[in-house]
Parts: sequence; structure tokens; C-alpha cells
Amino acid sequence: MVVTHPKTGEQLSVGIDLITVPRLRETLQAYQNAEFDFLVLPLAHPRYERTFDNVHNAEQARSKLASSALGRDKSAHGVGSAGGSVTAQHMGVIRDEPFTRSDMELSSGEWMSSVIGKVSPWICLDSIHDRVRKNAEKAFFQEVAFAAHLSLRAVVVEATLGGASSGIANMGRCINAALHKHPALQIWLRIPVKVADDVARASLRNGDTWEMWNAIRCMCDSHPNLYVAMELGGEMPSVASMARWAAEPFRLVFLSTSAFQMNKHGYPVLIKQHQTSLRILFKYRPHLALCHKLPAGLERLNKGYRFYVEYLAHFFGKSERSAVEQFREPYNDFLMAPTGESCTRGASQLLLNSCVEAQTYETFESDPAKYDKYSEALRKCLSARKRGQMKTVILVMGAGRGALVRLVLAAAADTSMPVQIYAAEQNAHACAALHDAFTASTDQHDVIVVHCARGYRAWRPDAKADVILCEMLGSFGDNELAPECIDAIARDHLKPDGVCIPSKVSSFVAPLASAKLYNEVCAFGNRARADFESPYIVSIHRGMIVAPEEECFVFELPGASSGPTSASPGSNASNERYRSLTFSISESNNLHGFAGYFDAVLYKDVTLSTRPGAAGTDGLVSWFPYFIPISEPVYMARGGECVLDIWRKTDDTRVWYEWCVVSPAHLALHNPDGRSSAIPLL
Amino acid sequence: MVVTHPKTGEQLSVGIDLITVPRLRETLQAYQNAEFDFLVLPLAHPRYERTFDNVHNAEQARSKLASSALGRDKSAHGVGSAGGSVTAQHMGVIRDEPFTRSDMELSSGEWMSSVIGKVSPWICLDSIHDRVRKNAEKAFFQEVAFAAHLSLRAVVVEATLGGASSGIANMGRCINAALHKHPALQIWLRIPVKVADDVARASLRNGDTWEMWNAIRCMCDSHPNLYVAMELGGEMPSVASMARWAAEPFRLVFLSTSAFQMNKHGYPVLIKQHQTSLRILFKYRPHLALCHKLPAGLERLNKGYRFYVEYLAHFFGKSERSAVEQFREPYNDFLMAPTGESCTRGASQLLLNSCVEAQTYETFESDPAKYDKYSEALRKCLSARKRGQMKTVILVMGAGRGALVRLVLAAAADTSMPVQIYAAEQNAHACAALHDAFTASTDQHDVIVVHCARGYRAWRPDAKADVILCEMLGSFGDNELAPECIDAIARDHLKPDGVCIPSKVSSFVAPLASAKLYNEVCAFGNRARADFESPYIVSIHRGMIVAPEEECFVFELPGASSGPTSASPGSNASNERYRSLTFSISESNNLHGFAGYFDAVLYKDVTLSTRPGAAGTDGLVSWFPYFIPISEPVYMARGGECVLDIWRKTDDTRVWYEWCVVSPAHLALHNPDGRSSAIPLL
Repeated sequence: MVVTHPKTGEQLSVGIDLITVPRLRETLQAYQNAEFDFLVLPLAHPRYERTFDNVHNAEQARSKLASSALGRDKSAHGVGSAGGSVTAQHMGVIRDEPFTRSDMELSSGEWMSSVIGKVSPWICLDSIHDRVRKNAEKAFFQEVAFAAHLSLRAVVVEATLGGASSGIANMGRCINAALHKHPALQIWLRIPVKVADDVARASLRNGDTWEMWNAIRCMCDSHPNLYVAMELGGEMPSVASMARWAAEPFRLVFLSTSAFQMNKHGYPVLIKQHQTSLRILFKYRPHLALCHKLPAGLERLNKGYRFYVEYLAHFFGKSERSAVEQFREPYNDFLMAPTGESCTRGASQLLLNSCVEAQTYETFESDPAKYDKYSEALRKCLSARKRGQMKTVILVMGAGRGALVRLVLAAAADTSMPVQIYAAEQNAHACAALHDAFTASTDQHDVIVVHCARGYRAWRPDAKADVILCEMLGSFGDNELAPECIDAIARDHLKPDGVCIPSKVSSFVAPLASAKLYNEVCAFGNRARADFESPYIVSIHRGMIVAPEEECFVFELPGASSGPTSASPGSNASNERYRSLTFSISESNNLHGFAGYFDAVLYKDVTLSTRPGAAGTDGLVSWFPYFIPISEPVYMARGGECVLDIWRKTDDTRVWYEWCVVSPAHLALHNPDGRSSAIPLL
Repeated sequence: MVVTHPKTGEQLSVGIDLITVPRLRETLQAYQNAEFDFLVLPLAHPRYERTFDNVHNAEQARSKLASSALGRDKSAHGVGSAGGSVTAQHMGVIRDEPFTRSDMELSSGEWMSSVIGKVSPWICLDSIHDRVRKNAEKAFFQEVAFAAHLSLRAVVVEATLGGASSGIANMGRCINAALHKHPALQIWLRIPVKVADDVARASLRNGDTWEMWNAIRCMCDSHPNLYVAMELGGEMPSVASMARWAAEPFRLVFLSTSAFQMNKHGYPVLIKQHQTSLRILFKYRPHLALCHKLPAGLERLNKGYRFYVEYLAHFFGKSERSAVEQFREPYNDFLMAPTGESCTRGASQLLLNSCVEAQTYETFESDPAKYDKYSEALRKCLSARKRGQMKTVILVMGAGRGALVRLVLAAAADTSMPVQIYAAEQNAHACAALHDAFTASTDQHDVIVVHCARGYRAWRPDAKADVILCEMLGSFGDNELAPECIDAIARDHLKPDGVCIPSKVSSFVAPLASAKLYNEVCAFGNRARADFESPYIVSIHRGMIVAPEEECFVFELPGASSGPTSASPGSNASNERYRSLTFSISESNNLHGFAGYFDAVLYKDVTLSTRPGAAGTDGLVSWFPYFIPISEPVYMARGGECVLDIWRKTDDTRVWYEWCVVSPAHLALHNPDGRSSAIPLL
């Protein structure tokens, strides 16, 4: 049964993990009756262990027997096998019968939709014994080839933990080879999210199963058909560790029946800790597979297992998604170029025009949280002004289609402060909308629409402003050049007691692990350098912030409230910045870049923040995080430091960022001299 | 004076490092008279410290003064300066006179050949004070631009150690920017090879100045115009550490007069430890620059400094180069494809033909050390045989132009053992030479030339062999497929008491740091993947073996002496191998790949080794090291481990290697399924 979420319409698929399947069709039927959607089953019978070495000799032995048995009927085959087992005394069991069932047992549609294959558990690809290892390799490739022949969705390979294995390198090599040999087949690496400490310490780096996954993923060069099939067993990791797993490409969650307990009515319910984990994982829409360590008789199924499925369906139905999450969903992990940025990257298909589209305006305007803040700031600002003869002059920079103008008019009406508004806008289409909306001046309020075709910095308003109002913050606070634009206007056109809204903007940066986003950048231009030297705007979904964000660049914007600043407004160089930021790494992970956010002080205590979890972020949807990529993943060990040096540079025509990871590894300086991405100064 | 080595003809150029140069032409003349070849001198006068900030305001102030002074003559310039210094009370010293001397003081030829520029020492690019840092940046770019204007060979930038600097990131960024801005200019980073421990611990990773160089090099993405100008001062590092410095791209060695002491005749001689260091460095042909902490009057020059130059010329003249070094010199760091390998790499210009060229044969044949060993092995082998009626049958695989055949004949004559030689050769041109040399059979000895056009494995000799003789070892021992070729012949054509020469081959691997070779691989195909997945043959010069070599693959070749082997001769898979090798890193460095060598047991106690420093390597020139590259440099911290997993894989038509670095970082598996390089099985 595919479970459908009652509100979101999302689907959940629940399967069962089986150890032996003597009669495939009956088994499939029985589990489908018990509401299971698919089976995870071994491709070969567990007892079909095979040896391949000395096949040459064995064949010779067999052909000798066969020739002596010449003229007998087909039942001589039995003798052939016996001949095989003679050599087998020295050579191990050699079989020449087919190693597994016929592909005719199910229709190809059934194989594809209802079966996930499993590689035999006896296959130890990293045995310290040459012969065992070589046999294991042959059996492995034989079974994978069978899975490919059946066009199964995936084959599950179990990560070997400890035992007589020397590590995982040969498993990694074999998985890599299988992925290359069968380009349509997915391999799902089955791995527990945590193992008992004694097992872990014996065989794993940091005692951490994630390290094993990471090693194999790296060996396979992050092959797009390699996924995790994670096992939630008795041992459960911390929430942070679970979040790290959730950011990995996983397709399947094995859920042991031991993760359940019986409620007072005798029905199975998930243990609390597993509920928490599963809620985190549901965001990524995995398949679930129930597993039970003891093989169960078919007769138990209709009674017992059905309740597990029903419980999971119920639990899934209760999972919630916030309005912001729903809004962001279609944008998840989709890289966009920052508005107004010129760049040399291959990603020309991104929304890249400095003329914002109508649709984008609509999105920006539909952010009540942002406009509530601006509205509050405007009211407080107007209320604080002395009442005089003069109208309050307000310059709106980047008026768009008038959302801020409307806010000003509303605030002016509420506070009974007459205003004269200069609505400056660069985009001609938006100017048309502004003209249309604000042609009729009233006694109280004037609205003058100004088309700044050559950019805001060239604008020379014909009145000095009491307030400069600006929402061109961009996801990184300063990346739509609010500091430059406001500086240029404020120098000559802000009254001595005038104010800027916002009055201060600070950007923030946090290290990000996201193999998904890294691969997206790689995909643009075949790993072209320019793509890694350009920031993006993206709703980060498959990714994890590895350490709390640090304050990066701070801009005190001119105005009476800010007092004397060290910035000299005449020189554009005053908006250059340099920061060296250090982050402490609490859990090992790979660094793929940095997420950028910002805080803005709009007016006195009215603030805005895009930092996740910060006050003032509830319901804010206008700004997706900024994403600053790096050219290669860097492994960060638990307890270590990550150091980023980042510059905001300017010259007469452009603003750009340069960045460099200097710890734990030295990477090359990114985007020197703005060669790959820069924001033109208009 | 350019010093010429009396034997090798190499040249040494000695210069002087100066702190102030008030009168450039006289100074140049004086030092040239004292036999110095070039000057290292500051581009600006040390007292010409400049500030650049608020230039805007300062200019305004100046233009006001200038306009008030309108009508005055050019001497008003002084007033303008005074105007500058009025603002300077708040703004620092602002000058508008030229910051340094005229480019006319020397001819452009003299600038280029006799002057290396130095950036002003007060420039602190990583000051923790924003204003100091910004000023420093402007002065830095001003001076670098002047150096580029003069077409100087290079400009020396001094690495800042400790003090009020926050690190080196901004210096790295500025150097990188300068390299990009002036594509023809070289920057030489002046850095002591070792500093006093208290200075080191305060500001350097591992207390090691090499780490600082490495950080800047990495930031600059190993820019080809960035070099080291190393300073040999009072503190000297270990020989291993010196070897590490020597493997870096360095152009200049600053040699302090404090590294000398006076001998009993009152002449300066280098301290022993510095002699050792300089001998290591001479291999790489650096320039030397003498430096003295106290500025010396010109009058001292002709007397004192001249003796230093004369001593250095004398010392240089005594430096020796071994015959093998001289032989290898033209091949140093020149990547070659292994003979007979098919590969998809872009490096098609390499010597890549399976038909070896006449020149190559000549090179191989001119290796007395190798043939002495083979000769000794043959003598011992023939002496040990029982004397009977039958001639001893010797199969020579890869007879080339007959060098081994001649050895056999000589050994047979010496031991009075009649022989019948089958000289098998794949190359038709070499066969012609063989026919020409060995047509006349004697009573004693027969030579039968066999042209194996389809490869040695297809050869079916018409007699069973007593001895199989083979020199197709390749730089990695097994990479010319001696195991496969010998197995194929020995299975049916080696007498039960027959022997193989060699009887055992073992390959060895050691981690290699060589930015030079890494860059060479990058250069082939613009960092194409296939180039990093192909081994090379190369005389490693600018490179350093970071840890002792470990045994890799071992091949016991068939024969009476080796006893029963586990290898089953029928199956080619028996020559597959897998090793996981761990190396301990005693000094931090970058891993760029692995060097490969081999040991061969020719016959009983007669062995051959290409490992540097191993017994039996003296004078051996036939085999340059094997070089197994990796796709990206990996930093290896002192005290850590480097782990390499390496496989020798075979199928019906090819043999190839796969390799993967799993520690200290996980790299992708290289050359999976032999996709980039493989050796065809003929």
C-alpha cells in the first residue's frame, strides 16, 4: 500500500526486508495482502555460496567425467556435479547449476516495482584471505549483473563492519566498478546510523558509521547512483548526527521491529527517539522497509505486521510541514543567480537578468512578515519626527511595483504625517506600474515616480530627504549594493537629521555540508572553475549547517541615528571589508561551501533576520540563503576548526567577493579580482 | 661575475642584498667590481612610507591651496606638499611626489639583468588595523607595478612573521592579485628556512616556515610565477627539512654573512651545516644573494665582500655530480609514458609506441650495471647445471638487439656449457638486428631468432626450456607484463627442473611530494582526469620521497627454485594483486602521488634493485622511477599516516592498476576498470 498524506498529498511507500524467500510469488502476494508495497530480498539463496577459483581445473575434471559418460542421457548431469565435488575437496564447492531463481517467476513490471535486491550476506569483499576475497568479488558481480538484468530499482549492499575484513577499500572499488558497469542500476549502501560502541571502536574511524559511508562515497567520486539505505536499529545517534545522515542522499530507511514497543492496547508504536528521527527523515521522502531479525512464518503476517504498516501510515499522516516549508518546497536545492549579478559562469539558464520578472515581484510582495517589519519601522520613524510645516520627504530606492510606497502612505495616514515620496525604480516595467498606481497626488501626500535607468547611484533627487528607504538587501545583506547606493544618495541628499531604513546591515556566514548542492554546481559546467567562484541563492534542503553562523561584514548606513562613522562616504573603498572567520566543528563532515544570511536593523529596535532560528525570521520568505561554494569538498574532523577568509572588494565599476578556506585544508583563493563573478556598480 | 663550474659547465650567479641604495649607478658599479652579478634592492626608499586613504579629501585640500596659489611658478609645488601635510596631522603622511627613483637611472637591459626588486619592508599586508592594511595594499601594488614597468626578472616579497599581523591570508590574496595583474612578473617569496623556536611557535603552524610558504602557494593555486627565495640564516633545519625546501620551486637563496666564519688565514668559509645545505641546493641551480644585516660602506666592498664571492665560486666548483646524475639530467622531471601502455591520456606526444625506438635500445644497452648482474646470474645458473649430452636450452624473451644473447654466449663460453638460444623478439626492426648478429651457428652454440609478432604469450617454442631469461621488467617490475608472459610460456615449455631469470620480482611504492610533477601532469590536458589516472616514467628531480618505500606486489616466477607456488598458472587472474600500504609521515608535506620501484631476484643471491639507496643500484640507469599520480594534492600532517590502496587487475585482454588514497583524505578511486590507462596483453 502506498500511503498518501491527508494534507500534503505526499506519498510514503512501506516495504519489508526478508532473509529467505523460498517461494517468491506466494511471498509477494502474502506481504501485499498485509499492505506492504515492496520486498527487499536476497538475489541468491543464502546457501548458494559459490567458489570460482580453479574453475579451469574443475571444468577439466568435469569434462573428463562427461566424456567417459558419453552416450548417457541428461541425468548424467548428476554425475557431473559429483565430479565437481571430487575436486571440491581441495577446491571448495563448485556448482554449475544456475545460482538463483529464474527471472520468469515475476513479470518484469513486478520485479521493477515490487522488488529491491540484496547482495548475499556472506560476500566479504574485504576479507584478509585472498581466496575468500576473490570469490566474494565474483559472486558480487554475478548478483549485481542479475539485478541489472531484472531492471530492479536498486540493489542493497551491506557495509561490512569488523570481522575478518581488512577495511572497506575493496568493497568501495567493487561498488564503483558495478556502478560503472551498470549505468542504470542504483546501489544503496545499507549501513546502521549508529552501532554499539565496542563494534564501532574496533573498526571505524571515530567509531562512526557515517565515516564508512563517507569513505565509500569518496572512493566512488560521489557517483549519482550511489545512495544510503540507513538502518534505524536499537542504537540511536544524537539529533545532530541524525540531521547529518538526513542531509546525505538516502533512499531507504530500514526500520527494525525492535524500534517499536507495544502500547496498552497491544498495538506497535515507535519509541520516542525513533519518532524524532523519523520526523527528520520524512522531510526527504524516503521509502521505509520493516525488518525483523527472526524469519516470520507467513501466517503471522496478516495479523502482526499489518499493524506496523498501519501505525507508520498514521504516524506519517501526522507529520506537519510549515507554511514557509511549503512555500520553499518547489525551490529546494535549486540554484539561482543573485539578482543583478554579472557572472561568467556556465549557468546562463539561471534567472540572471537585472530586470526582475513580474513573477518575482509577486513573490517578494507576498511576504507579509517582511512588510510588517518595514511598516512598523516606518510608523515608529514617522511618529518620532517633529510636526512642522514641511512634508516629510521619503526616498524609496528600488520601489518595485509600489509595495513600500503603499506602506509609507499607510503609515503616513496612521500617524497623520504628510509625506512627499520619491519612488525611484530602475526597471522600466515596474515604473509603468508605479505611474499607474500613484498618479493622483492628494493634498496630504505626493508621490513622484523616478525612473533611474542608469542606476540609483546616478540619481540626483531634487529635494533633500528625511528618510531613505531601501529593501534592496539581497540574501547576503549587501549583495544588491545597498551600501553603495545609499552612500551615493545620502552624501548630498540626506538631511543632517535624516535617517536610513535600514540603518545597519550585517551579513552572517556558516559552514555548509551539502553533497547535493556541490553536485549541482559541478553539473552546471562540468566542474568549471567559474561555477565554484560564483555565489548562488538557494533554498537549502539536502544540506546541513555544520557550525553556528558568525558575523561577517557590517555596514552602518549613514543617518542621524548612527552618529559619526569611520566610513568616509566619498570613497567607494570604504565599503571594502575583510574578515577571517573561525568555526568549531563538533561533528565530522565534509565542507562544501558556506551559507550566507543577514540581519538588518530597520529602525531602532525593529529588526529583521534571515538567520535560521533567529528572532524576526518567522514567516520570512523573501530571502533564500546565499550559498558560497568551494571548488572541492574538504573533510572536517570533529573537534577541529574551519577557517574562512573572505573579502568584499570594490573598484570603480564593480563589487565582488573573494574567499579562501585556509583550514582544515588550504584551498586556492576563489574569485580573485572578481574574475568569475561580480556585481556591476550602476 | 657569473661563475662557471670547471667540469660540468653549469653556471652560478651571485648577487648582493641591499637595504638602501642612495646612488644606484655607483652602487651597481661598485658591486660589479667586487664580482657580484646582481643587486637585490628596495624599489622605494625605505623612508618613503605613504598613506593613501582620504586621498579624496587631501586632493580637495590641495586643489584649494593650488587655486589660491594660481599664477605662481612651478615652485608652488612645495606649497602643495605643505597643504598635504596640513591634512596629514589627521590623515597621515600624504605625498604626491613620485614615490621612487626614475626608470632612467639604468638602461632597461641593466634593470632586467642586474636588479631584483624588493617590496618595502614596512608594508604589512595582514595588519590587524584596517587602515594600516589598506595603505599597505596600495603601496604594495604600486611597487609591484613599478617592478613590472621595469621588466625586472622578479620582485621579492618578504613573508611577515608574527608582529601585529593577523596571519598571511591577505598577503596571499595580494600576491595572487599581483601575479594575475602582471603575467610576466615573477614573485619570489622571501622566507627563512627556519626561525628561532619562540618566533615560530607564536605565529606558525607546527612552528614551521614551510607551512607558511605552503599556505600562500595553495592560495595562489600553485601559480607558475610564484617562487621561493629562501633565507639561510643562523637557524638551520634538519637535512630532511632542507630536502623538502629543495623540492620546492625556489630561485634564489639568501645567504647571510653570519653563515660564514673566518678561517685561520682570515678568509670567510661557510659553516659545515650550511655547506651541507648548499650542496643539496646546488642540484637545482639557484641564484645566491649575500646579505649582511648592517649596511656596509662602499669602501669595504672591494676588500671584504669579494672574498665571499670567491669562496662561493670555489665551493661551487668543488660540487660533484655522479655519472648517474649526469646521465639522468636531460630527463629530469620529464614525464614519459611506460613502454607498451595504451592510454587515453592527452599526452600523446610522449614516447608511447609499443615499438621501442633505436635510441631507446641504445640507452638500455648502455647500462653496464644491469648487464653485469644478468651476466653473474647466468654464470651461476649455468655452472650449477649438470653437464650432459644435451645443450642447455635458453629462451630469451624480449631479446631486443641481442644484448642478453651476447651475455648468454659469453657465459656459456666461460662455463663451457653448450647452449641453444631461442631469441624471441616482438619488434621487427630489432629482429633484423638479431638475424644480422647471430646467423652463423657454431658447433657449440645455436641461436634461433623468433619474431613474436603477436606477442610473447602466443609463442610456442619447439623445445622445452632449461632457462627462461627476461629483462622486460619495466620501472614497476611487473608493468611490462613479465609475470603474464613468463607464465604463458612456462606452463608448457619450461622443463620441470628449469629456472626463470629473474625468479622473483617485487614492486615498491613510496609517497612523493612534487609540485613540479603535479603541475606537469596538469599541463598535459588542462587537468584532464585521464592524465591523473595514468602512471608515468620519470627521473624525479624536484620532488621528495616523504616516507620509506613499502613492498607492494610480489611475483614468484615459475621454476624449480621457487618450489610449489600458490599461483595457478592457467588462470591469468592469478596475477591480480591487492595491497593496502601505510606510510608514516615524519614531516608535513603535500602528497602528489607515489614513486614506484622494484627489486628482482635474478638467480639465487644475484639481485637487482631500483630503490634509491638499496644495494645493487649503483650505476643502474635503465629504469627511471615509476610515477603514480593523484588527482589533487593532499596535505599530510607530520606524525600522521598516509594510506594507499592499490590493485593490479587483469582481464582477458589487459592489465591495469587501480589506486586510491584513503588517508589522510579520501580521494576518488583512480583508473577504475582501467578506463584511463591499461597495458594490452599481447
